[in-house]
Amino acid sequence: MKIAKFGGSSVADASQIKKVLKIFNEDNERLVMVVSAPGKRFDGDIKVTDMLIDLYHLVISNHPSKEIDEQINRILERFQLIEEELQFQHSLLSHFKEKLKFHIAEITEPARLLDALKSSGEDFNAELIAAYNTEQGIETLYMNPDDIGLYVTDEPGNAMVREESFEAIKNRLPRDRKVIIPGFFGVSESNQIVTFSRGGSDLTGAIVARALDADLYENYTDVSGIFSANPMIIPNPAQIEELTYDEMRELSYAGFNVFHDEAIAPLYSKGIPVVIKNTNRPDDSGTFIVPNRKAEGVVGVSCDKGFVSINMKKYLMNREIGFTRKLLSILEALGISYEHIPSGIDNVSIILREHQLIDKEGLLIEQIEKTLNVDQLSIEKNLAILMIVGEGMKTAVGTANKATQAFRDHNINLKMINQGSSEISMMFGIEEKDATNALKAVYNAYF
Amino acid sequence: MKIAKFGGSSVADASQIKKVLKIFNEDNERLVMVVSAPGKRFDGDIKVTDMLIDLYHLVISNHPSKEIDEQINRILERFQLIEEELQFQHSLLSHFKEKLKFHIAEITEPARLLDALKSSGEDFNAELIAAYNTEQGIETLYMNPDDIGLYVTDEPGNAMVREESFEAIKNRLPRDRKVIIPGFFGVSESNQIVTFSRGGSDLTGAIVARALDADLYENYTDVSGIFSANPMIIPNPAQIEELTYDEMRELSYAGFNVFHDEAIAPLYSKGIPVVIKNTNRPDDSGTFIVPNRKAEGVVGVSCDKGFVSINMKKYLMNREIGFTRKLLSILEALGISYEHIPSGIDNVSIILREHQLIDKEGLLIEQIEKTLNVDQLSIEKNLAILMIVGEGMKTAVGTANKATQAFRDHNINLKMINQGSSEISMMFGIEEKDATNALKAVYNAYF
Repeated sequence: MKIAKFGGSSVADASQIKKVLKIFNEDNERLVMVVSAPGKRFDGDIKVTDMLIDLYHLVISNHPSKEIDEQINRILERFQLIEEELQFQHSLLSHFKEKLKFHIAEITEPARLLDALKSSGEDFNAELIAAYNTEQGIETLYMNPDDIGLYVTDEPGNAMVREESFEAIKNRLPRDRKVIIPGFFGVSESNQIVTFSRGGSDLTGAIVARALDADLYENYTDVSGIFSANPMIIPNPAQIEELTYDEMRELSYAGFNVFHDEAIAPLYSKGIPVVIKNTNRPDDSGTFIVPNRKAEGVVGVSCDKGFVSINMKKYLMNREIGFTRKLLSILEALGISYEHIPSGIDNVSIILREHQLIDKEGLLIEQIEKTLNVDQLSIEKNLAILMIVGEGMKTAVGTANKATQAFRDHNINLKMINQGSSEISMMFGIEEKDATNALKAVYNAYF
Repeated sequence: MKIAKFGGSSVADASQIKKVLKIFNEDNERLVMVVSAPGKRFDGDIKVTDMLIDLYHLVISNHPSKEIDEQINRILERFQLIEEELQFQHSLLSHFKEKLKFHIAEITEPARLLDALKSSGEDFNAELIAAYNTEQGIETLYMNPDDIGLYVTDEPGNAMVREESFEAIKNRLPRDRKVIIPGFFGVSESNQIVTFSRGGSDLTGAIVARALDADLYENYTDVSGIFSANPMIIPNPAQIEELTYDEMRELSYAGFNVFHDEAIAPLYSKGIPVVIKNTNRPDDSGTFIVPNRKAEGVVGVSCDKGFVSINMKKYLMNREIGFTRKLLSILEALGISYEHIPSGIDNVSIILREHQLIDKEGLLIEQIEKTLNVDQLSIEKNLAILMIVGEGMKTAVGTANKATQAFRDHNINLKMINQGSSEISMMFGIEEKDATNALKAVYNAYF
């Protein structure tokens, strides 16, 4: 049995929805489909989710009800167009309008209203596509997270699945007909709509796949798989046929956004494979993400900008018990999360994403100076992190050498090297201005 | 004005003491001399400090007083031999015996008795050498830490200098005649003898050098300077002419034991240079340790064994706020100090010295499993850390490449690379079995 999840561009308009349903219907193994909200139909188009977020801002800043109604109508027009092009008989538009109005009227807490509105794109799309498929003669059930028992923690915009969901979904999902579920959200204990982090429809599919112990989780998008490097920078990069969960997770960290990395977590225990496929070219083989594989060499390289290094030096630091722990406590108290902590004998650096410092840089420096009494303190901005990923690196001698040679040949100064904990990746800190050159150099060295 | 410190082998017997005094007397700039306890005279000889520690163990385990007296006599025989060979007229032996007996009779707390006995080797040697020099016609004052005001924290075996010492020493030390001071200990607020960590005579000299704002701190030992690699492994390694405080500190971390690294701390603020010289070849130029220098390339390579890596993996670890802080708190509570914390996306390793785990490994593992709920946990033993050090690395592109190439060419698998926080060093984790080959390979690559 397979779970198929379709991304925003795969369900953006009527013609895409027809492709999706063809895929869904032609294989009886495809029992459950998870859908996103309608995405962009063309460059410059606006996603329905973004229109819903705009609606939220109008409501919350007390704009006149006329403007709010206009925005609601703009959203409904997207669905109206879909209905018309599908020649759908039993319009759901007034039902959708009521749902939006109900959320706006009933939910007073802003974060909760945002989640309820944000989730509506997926919700409406699932209901509409299920009804249309039924109308076409294939009985298809629309079930929302409340129906199937997808219970989540009560953290608006950042829900996490609760363990009891798996048993509930297993018990409630019928096996005798097709089911369409909206992605991106669950319900909390107090029966509120709570969304996952953005891109969270991948997660809904993964949760259902685990609950039903699926044989395969198909993730349909608008590319035929995962490339070994960013195609915006490297022309025609090699496509990856197969990679492991761990390789996926390492790559997704530094800019590979094809599959939501939290979505691997539910699949881990049962080892359910994922395939990334192209809705527009469903016969392409795609990229498989699997628990284990026999691998040689490097599977992908990525580079992400926007990092900062806070460097501290203190003579005899390494004899000072608790220094790093105190440093991390300061960061934790300020709600700053960090990426790495490279250390020398008498120095330590904290590598973090630059946005973590917004409004907090001054406070952080003050706290470090007050608490840790360091000899030197400096902040280095505009750093990029380049990652080289591959299970084959575990056993290879000379993987590091290939990379450092590429950097040397292209005159790229290494600010940081971090290898050691993960055996399947190596991480290099460079200046942002070198990012493109470095990625090209490393890609050419390995591929 | 110069402060001259002489190590154990430089003051091990009468002929060495004569060399030392020749050096001390021939230069009027040499105002203060700091001496160690008599060291080894030949391979297999026993240092006086170790004899004193044995004496402590006999006392503390309530051995018969006959055995204790025999040990005291063995210790005094060393000084007797020195006196005889020097043809010293006014023997101090009975005075030394009284001092030892007094410590044993009066000090009940074991850790304090150990410090008092341990410090006696330096104390007796300083008193004897000063008296002998005076007898030879050069008026020389013996002053102990209590006389000069060398005040330390009250942590037996691990004293730290207290700030007020510098002013006290400056005021109390006469400038009109030569002074000999025993190294290795100070006095606490409650007027107890407290020793520095082993090798701490270097520290005494540094404290006096700072207090007197000396022009040069001469550190006399039995080698003509610092080599760029361990001569036991690399035949005839290059000698270092000059290196910075920071380079010294990085090298001393991984097996370079020529100069006690805590001894740099007092010199930092005034930038007092140190020279490592050979008592037996005083005309050799030695190695200078200076605050700053213009440097190119690598100054030294070192490799130290006995490291362990504790590797943890947990899916989505990098989203878990406080994970590393909790981990460090566990280590701190167990009194385990660590060296490095290389981290990947979902994994983190703790690199520590193997002896830190004695009796604590089981407890540590248990605590990690209980508190951190990791997916995977493993311990990797028998690791070595190889360090490449040089101020010239700050600006060089390709330093890392030279090393990784050497490792690849010699088929050495890199377990860890840590570069980033200190700009003057790079650190590589390898297996212990590769340590010798790796050091040779890297030495040959840079020198």
